[in-house]
Amino acid sequence: MASRGYHIVVLNGPNLNLLGTREPDIYGSVTLGQIEQQITRYGEEQSAKIDFYQSNHEGEIIDIIHQNREADGIIINPGAYTHTSVAIRDAIASVNIPAVEVHLSNIHSREEFRSHSFIAPVCIGQICGFGATSYIIALAALVDYLKTRKSRP
Amino acid sequence: MASRGYHIVVLNGPNLNLLGTREPDIYGSVTLGQIEQQITRYGEEQSAKIDFYQSNHEGEIIDIIHQNREADGIIINPGAYTHTSVAIRDAIASVNIPAVEVHLSNIHSREEFRSHSFIAPVCIGQICGFGATSYIIALAALVDYLKTRKSRP
Amino acid sequence: MASRGYHIVVLNGPNLNLLGTREPDIYGSVTLGQIEQQITRYGEEQSAKIDFYQSNHEGEIIDIIHQNREADGIIINPGAYTHTSVAIRDAIASVNIPAVEVHLSNIHSREEFRSHSFIAPVCIGQICGFGATSYIIALAALVDYLKTRKSRP
Amino acid sequence: MASRGYHIVVLNGPNLNLLGTREPDIYGSVTLGQIEQQITRYGEEQSAKIDFYQSNHEGEIIDIIHQNREADGIIINPGAYTHTSVAIRDAIASVNIPAVEVHLSNIHSREEFRSHSFIAPVCIGQICGFGATSYIIALAALVDYLKTRKSRP
Amino acid sequence: MASRGYHIVVLNGPNLNLLGTREPDIYGSVTLGQIEQQITRYGEEQSAKIDFYQSNHEGEIIDIIHQNREADGIIINPGAYTHTSVAIRDAIASVNIPAVEVHLSNIHSREEFRSHSFIAPVCIGQICGFGATSYIIALAALVDYLKTRKSRP
Amino acid sequence: MASRGYHIVVLNGPNLNLLGTREPDIYGSVTLGQIEQQITRYGEEQSAKIDFYQSNHEGEIIDIIHQNREADGIIINPGAYTHTSVAIRDAIASVNIPAVEVHLSNIHSREEFRSHSFIAPVCIGQICGFGATSYIIALAALVDYLKTRKSRP
Amino acid sequence: MASRGYHIVVLNGPNLNLLGTREPDIYGSVTLGQIEQQITRYGEEQSAKIDFYQSNHEGEIIDIIHQNREADGIIINPGAYTHTSVAIRDAIASVNIPAVEVHLSNIHSREEFRSHSFIAPVCIGQICGFGATSYIIALAALVDYLKTRKSRP
Amino acid sequence: MASRGYHIVVLNGPNLNLLGTREPDIYGSVTLGQIEQQITRYGEEQSAKIDFYQSNHEGEIIDIIHQNREADGIIINPGAYTHTSVAIRDAIASVNIPAVEVHLSNIHSREEFRSHSFIAPVCIGQICGFGATSYIIALAALVDYLKTRKSRP
Amino acid sequence: MASRGYHIVVLNGPNLNLLGTREPDIYGSVTLGQIEQQITRYGEEQSAKIDFYQSNHEGEIIDIIHQNREADGIIINPGAYTHTSVAIRDAIASVNIPAVEVHLSNIHSREEFRSHSFIAPVCIGQICGFGATSYIIALAALVDYLKTRKSRP
Amino acid sequence: MASRGYHIVVLNGPNLNLLGTREPDIYGSVTLGQIEQQITRYGEEQSAKIDFYQSNHEGEIIDIIHQNREADGIIINPGAYTHTSVAIRDAIASVNIPAVEVHLSNIHSREEFRSHSFIAPVCIGQICGFGATSYIIALAALVDYLKTRKSRP
Amino acid sequence: MASRGYHIVVLNGPNLNLLGTREPDIYGSVTLGQIEQQITRYGEEQSAKIDFYQSNHEGEIIDIIHQNREADGIIINPGAYTHTSVAIRDAIASVNIPAVEVHLSNIHSREEFRSHSFIAPVCIGQICGFGATSYIIALAALVDYLKTRKSRP
Amino acid sequence: MASRGYHIVVLNGPNLNLLGTREPDIYGSVTLGQIEQQITRYGEEQSAKIDFYQSNHEGEIIDIIHQNREADGIIINPGAYTHTSVAIRDAIASVNIPAVEVHLSNIHSREEFRSHSFIAPVCIGQICGFGATSYIIALAALVDYLKTRKSRP
Repeated sequence: MASRGYHIVVLNGPNLNLLGTREPDIYGSVTLGQIEQQITRYGEEQSAKIDFYQSNHEGEIIDIIHQNREADGIIINPGAYTHTSVAIRDAIASVNIPAVEVHLSNIHSREEFRSHSFIAPVCIGQICGFGATSYIIALAALVDYLKTRKSRP
Repeated sequence: MASRGYHIVVLNGPNLNLLGTREPDIYGSVTLGQIEQQITRYGEEQSAKIDFYQSNHEGEIIDIIHQNREADGIIINPGAYTHTSVAIRDAIASVNIPAVEVHLSNIHSREEFRSHSFIAPVCIGQICGFGATSYIIALAALVDYLKTRKSRP
Repeated sequence: MASRGYHIVVLNGPNLNLLGTREPDIYGSVTLGQIEQQITRYGEEQSAKIDFYQSNHEGEIIDIIHQNREADGIIINPGAYTHTSVAIRDAIASVNIPAVEVHLSNIHSREEFRSHSFIAPVCIGQICGFGATSYIIALAALVDYLKTRKSRP
Repeated sequence: MASRGYHIVVLNGPNLNLLGTREPDIYGSVTLGQIEQQITRYGEEQSAKIDFYQSNHEGEIIDIIHQNREADGIIINPGAYTHTSVAIRDAIASVNIPAVEVHLSNIHSREEFRSHSFIAPVCIGQICGFGATSYIIALAALVDYLKTRKSRP
Repeated sequence: MASRGYHIVVLNGPNLNLLGTREPDIYGSVTLGQIEQQITRYGEEQSAKIDFYQSNHEGEIIDIIHQNREADGIIINPGAYTHTSVAIRDAIASVNIPAVEVHLSNIHSREEFRSHSFIAPVCIGQICGFGATSYIIALAALVDYLKTRKSRP
Repeated sequence: MASRGYHIVVLNGPNLNLLGTREPDIYGSVTLGQIEQQITRYGEEQSAKIDFYQSNHEGEIIDIIHQNREADGIIINPGAYTHTSVAIRDAIASVNIPAVEVHLSNIHSREEFRSHSFIAPVCIGQICGFGATSYIIALAALVDYLKTRKSRP
Repeated sequence: MASRGYHIVVLNGPNLNLLGTREPDIYGSVTLGQIEQQITRYGEEQSAKIDFYQSNHEGEIIDIIHQNREADGIIINPGAYTHTSVAIRDAIASVNIPAVEVHLSNIHSREEFRSHSFIAPVCIGQICGFGATSYIIALAALVDYLKTRKSRP
Repeated sequence: MASRGYHIVVLNGPNLNLLGTREPDIYGSVTLGQIEQQITRYGEEQSAKIDFYQSNHEGEIIDIIHQNREADGIIINPGAYTHTSVAIRDAIASVNIPAVEVHLSNIHSREEFRSHSFIAPVCIGQICGFGATSYIIALAALVDYLKTRKSRP
Repeated sequence: MASRGYHIVVLNGPNLNLLGTREPDIYGSVTLGQIEQQITRYGEEQSAKIDFYQSNHEGEIIDIIHQNREADGIIINPGAYTHTSVAIRDAIASVNIPAVEVHLSNIHSREEFRSHSFIAPVCIGQICGFGATSYIIALAALVDYLKTRKSRP
Repeated sequence: MASRGYHIVVLNGPNLNLLGTREPDIYGSVTLGQIEQQITRYGEEQSAKIDFYQSNHEGEIIDIIHQNREADGIIINPGAYTHTSVAIRDAIASVNIPAVEVHLSNIHSREEFRSHSFIAPVCIGQICGFGATSYIIALAALVDYLKTRKSRP
Repeated sequence: MASRGYHIVVLNGPNLNLLGTREPDIYGSVTLGQIEQQITRYGEEQSAKIDFYQSNHEGEIIDIIHQNREADGIIINPGAYTHTSVAIRDAIASVNIPAVEVHLSNIHSREEFRSHSFIAPVCIGQICGFGATSYIIALAALVDYLKTRKSRP
Repeated sequence: MASRGYHIVVLNGPNLNLLGTREPDIYGSVTLGQIEQQITRYGEEQSAKIDFYQSNHEGEIIDIIHQNREADGIIINPGAYTHTSVAIRDAIASVNIPAVEVHLSNIHSREEFRSHSFIAPVCIGQICGFGATSYIIALAALVDYLKTRKSRP
């Protein structure tokens, strides 16, 4: 499944910078840096160029989406903004780039308020629950989507 | 990522038997049979044995889960039962096998009642929106989960 | 209003098999067999061929809809599944045959939960409250719909 | 099914006077006058005398119901008052005449607020979705009801 | 408790014109005319002049309130408009006359939707459940209010 | 309107003992003792014997209702228990004595939670908003009810 | 911004006839007549012909909309019917004339039930909170809309 | 308390077939077969004949209820269908046999959605929380009910 | 099933003191005294000592629970406090004694607000609908629980 | 921060009498008596006289508030009545004494129904989550409030 | 309508920077820069000085409001923050400057969650649906408000 | 109560920078700078080092929490973010430092939406309503918590 050099933005929301260094019994010991390495390496196999971001600021996440509006695809883990940010939803909708929502944990088995996503309705799909692997399969799915969408109904 | 011969059940709910033969402008022209071929082939690459089922009957889906309670993992597309079946949820919980919920379409961007899943809270995670590719990446994620869960926190 | 030989499926949901033999003070003494006779006879007048089914199984009702996907129209009394079955709704939507929802009783004057129908939104319309006559006028309306839909806006 | 000269009131609520002359791509080109002709002719076949009314005024609709309280039956298309008028509901209940609620469109497949009817619970039944045919089958069902109610449970 | 010649408007909403002549087993055999006589006679004892109105039209009720904006008090039985009319509420608020809401039946022991009143919050108080007597005691309470309000906190 | 010696219980709920001595700008300067005097005097005119109680204890209010289960009628101002006590509701229902709910203030124009009454559905009716006069007219209405109920529909 | 002789209907709902003559501390001392003069004068500047109506009757408001269905635009202050009238909403939708909803007060800072409008979804837009000026800027916006809509996307 | 040979149907819903063989730390090690033995033996003491069923299929449970419509009583553990099946509710109501709802666990102390039962309102009563003992006491209560209902109010 | 001398408290809430002496057509003619005799006698057979209480006071019910905190088990019919008392719930939770909630009537087939229990989540289970027999089977179930809990999972 | 001899009432609601003697693993081993000693001692430092009460009776808590209506301030831990008692809310509002609501545990991190307080809106503020220390800081805050309120805006 | 040199802040929220350059078929081809030019020019006609801002950051929007707290008025298009930001609402309330909420699109005819505004209740009013013209008429209305508020009631 | 040199972060959310300089009639004339001085001085008495922050940016507040993740405790006044920010909640949870939520005003006696806190469930407790004193007692409570938590259950 070699890609034709897609440019993919991976965008991480609030508190994900702490990943792996704290509460390893909950989130595991994988750091965001390691996830970046994994997805970058997997991206290379797919001939995809990965730009990797993290921000705790809702506005900054919107800025990053705008700045990358020539990208081929977005993988976004909106963290807690999943449940509260109409502005990030609108940002994705306005740049009109295929996006995939990912989560490390299964948001459907946590507090009730975490099962609703403002972001998912403007994405191709949502992947949650697989830890760092969520990112890798999101990239696989996104690349597949980009390669096949011409032939789609 | 070669697996050590996992036995994986792929279980499809109501109306998925019609896939590809009707409404190709909505669901594409891929049939369930073709999905079975794809995932079986991908399973072989992963040394995973795939058993593929479809049923329109809630009770039969429960029976199939029970009969396969020695399997290593379940990939389930519960179709419309996603939103109404506590019984399938309990079936998955009672056999205690790692399960992944998949959907062809993005259930979060359709009618309000389709965004709630009774099944997802008892699964590892949920993948939706990638058409037939949803199944392939679910298998990838499930095999990865099975191989690494020993070392997880 | 002679029809050009339409094939109409009349599909009855759970507990309707008991009609007339029990609780005659509530549902009257007409049996489902008598309704079948009435609608078959009325169908003959309209040159319509009637296939008449009853099942207590949600999955079987879906199977019957699938098996009859070459029919010209469906008259469905979903019984209690009216209020709980997204799967039957999807079955009707997926075969894309004009359908009419009927009820013997007036579902809007009973318990609150009976006034909501998952099925009606994917039908041409809903008829309720006229006892066995609900079926006859549903057939009249369906035949009329089939004959005139070409000239509709 | 000849009737014994029933007096039937057909009562149309707000905005139905515009039928056919505007937005023919939505509501078709049939006018309310043509519906009156159709139902009057069908009434004659049934030996039923039809009085046909339309009003945009909630109070006037109540007045008409009161003035016709010796009628044998009412066919009412309450239009938008379906969803907001407790007063029309009470008017029908207070005159104690068998009534049938009709709608041209399928109110269950439109905006959420249109699926609730204040009127239906005090009627024999509800018919919706069949365009002008809704009126004809409502008359058939009402005449049938009037002829058979003595023998009903 | 002699009054100093108050001018009191008694205003009856939809369907109350039918009172007593229909459904005597529910609402008793007292007619609205008889209620008018009773309250007029009781008004005379209190030296209060009673103007008695009934209308099925929401707009007409508003007009009557406006036309009587020099009155000393209003007794209103809004009938079904109690539960749906913000416009009558605003009419009462805008003329700034002390008003009392009355009901023949106990609206709190009927359908859920009848226990909410849009009108009561802009009245002095609400009296319900005492049949025709509701009007008499409303007048007594209103006259008492008018005589004592100067000395109220 | 002379009564034939009815025995009427007037029952006051929590915080009503403070009436008149505190917050006179809100509740006026009338004390509960003065209300007792007024209603006792008015009762004498009606040949009705008044027993007057106040308690801050939900259980004690229930006890008083039980102890007076040979009374002819109850006038109850349940205070804050109006909105929270199913137990007082059941007490009134179980002794099967005609009861009238009264309130000094207009409960429909205060906080949202004060507009719902658990007590009113098991009473003849509700009177609110007239200050101390609420009690007097409740007694008038109750005596009238007792005298006429035989002749009621 | 000279217009090409647009015909604009300005339609005022219930209680607005009392404007300025009562409660001047709340609504100011401007009367509806003065608003009519202002908007007529401003219309003349824009070469727009203004027809100005007020009615307390929901049905009459619908009638006026129907009678003016050749107008170029509607400015409507539905008053209290904003929150309760599906029928006026349907009237506007059925005549298919560009409409603007206006309010003197800011409906979003009053009682909760006043923040929902049944009318706004079928209008171009909503303007509220600017007193009589709301009408003037609504006319400016409507004329601008009429002149530019051809060139709009 | 010897019974006069009652015929009692004990009906078990989805997933109960797995009882005892899986998750013994939650549900204990008692199997459904052992419960059958216990209740059969206890039935013999009471001269009651027990027919014991289990099905994962909603439709089959309805069929079994219909087939046993000459039985004297039903003990039903509807499992997860408790919370979703209107059809089973209607089946019980339509055969008009006294029924008792039982649950092994205390459904009121689990997820919120498990505290609502569609079945209980058409049963004599509900027993939950006592493990296998729930069945035994349900039989005791049912036999007692059958023996005494003649003398009941 | 002989017990080893358990001390069981049977605690009855508001209005249960009136049982049997009033409304015998609803609650039957069994008095609370007779229920006490039945359960005491059945307790003796089980070698269980029964202490039987009734109170209309929420606070007193809490006091009784506290005073008996050395008891082996509690059978509580909280009456109307079932639906409103968090305080009794906390009392049971704080003494940590196994408790069973009982009701004479089937609370799930009455008013909506009666189907929710604040007490049941802190009990072993709930039994309702069997009249006085509810108490007897509650005792049987409680004694069984006490004897077997050591061997439970 | 020496006070000028304030009289402070500390009022404890249901089940708090059991504090420390039961469930020490949840609530710690501090008894209510020890809290009384701590707050009394701290009161002495502040020259404040503390009257310390506990009652399981809602009515008694109201009585105590009334009896102390000359006090300078109230510290109230309403226990479970926090969430259900409008009557205690009204008692505090009616005596018009500055009150502080305290809780040992963090009520916002427990069951959903515990996060709503009927009492807090009529208090100066709420303090929760600090165990026995909640009382001490409540006293500090209350004394500070009493000393400075003259100079407050 | 010449103003006396008002200083007006025009503040644009998230994603508005993309206006005109993307999705021209939805939002038209007008850019935010062009809107700035239009409103600046219109401001000059009104002798009003316009400061024009855009930010995707909620916090920055608050900062801008604070920094301009000597301005005469604010025109704010809060974009998606309309529906989620209590903080911007509080910022406007705390600087106490007259503000007008504007939207390009009609927020009342889009997704349900877009019809609620946290900002509008602290503004003079809301204008939506007129594209770039919304800003111009907002400025007209705001200048009019500033000039006349002295003479307002 | 001397502390062993705790490092405490005091973190203030949006709009708190304006404190004291605006709307002194509501929030008093104390500035945030004065609060900083008070708490710093009180911290010195407790040997606690105070770091004092304010930001209007949700993301910056998260950054500050992360940067201080070696602190001993956090006192946070999240301002309006209390009601909308899941991200700040997650930030506090992820650094696992004891936190106390404080508010100047009593959030439970303001608009309904202000009584819900996303932050409080991950804090030790909440203190609100005491103006600047809220901070002082929060520090007292936090220091007490830090000193005693080892000995807690």
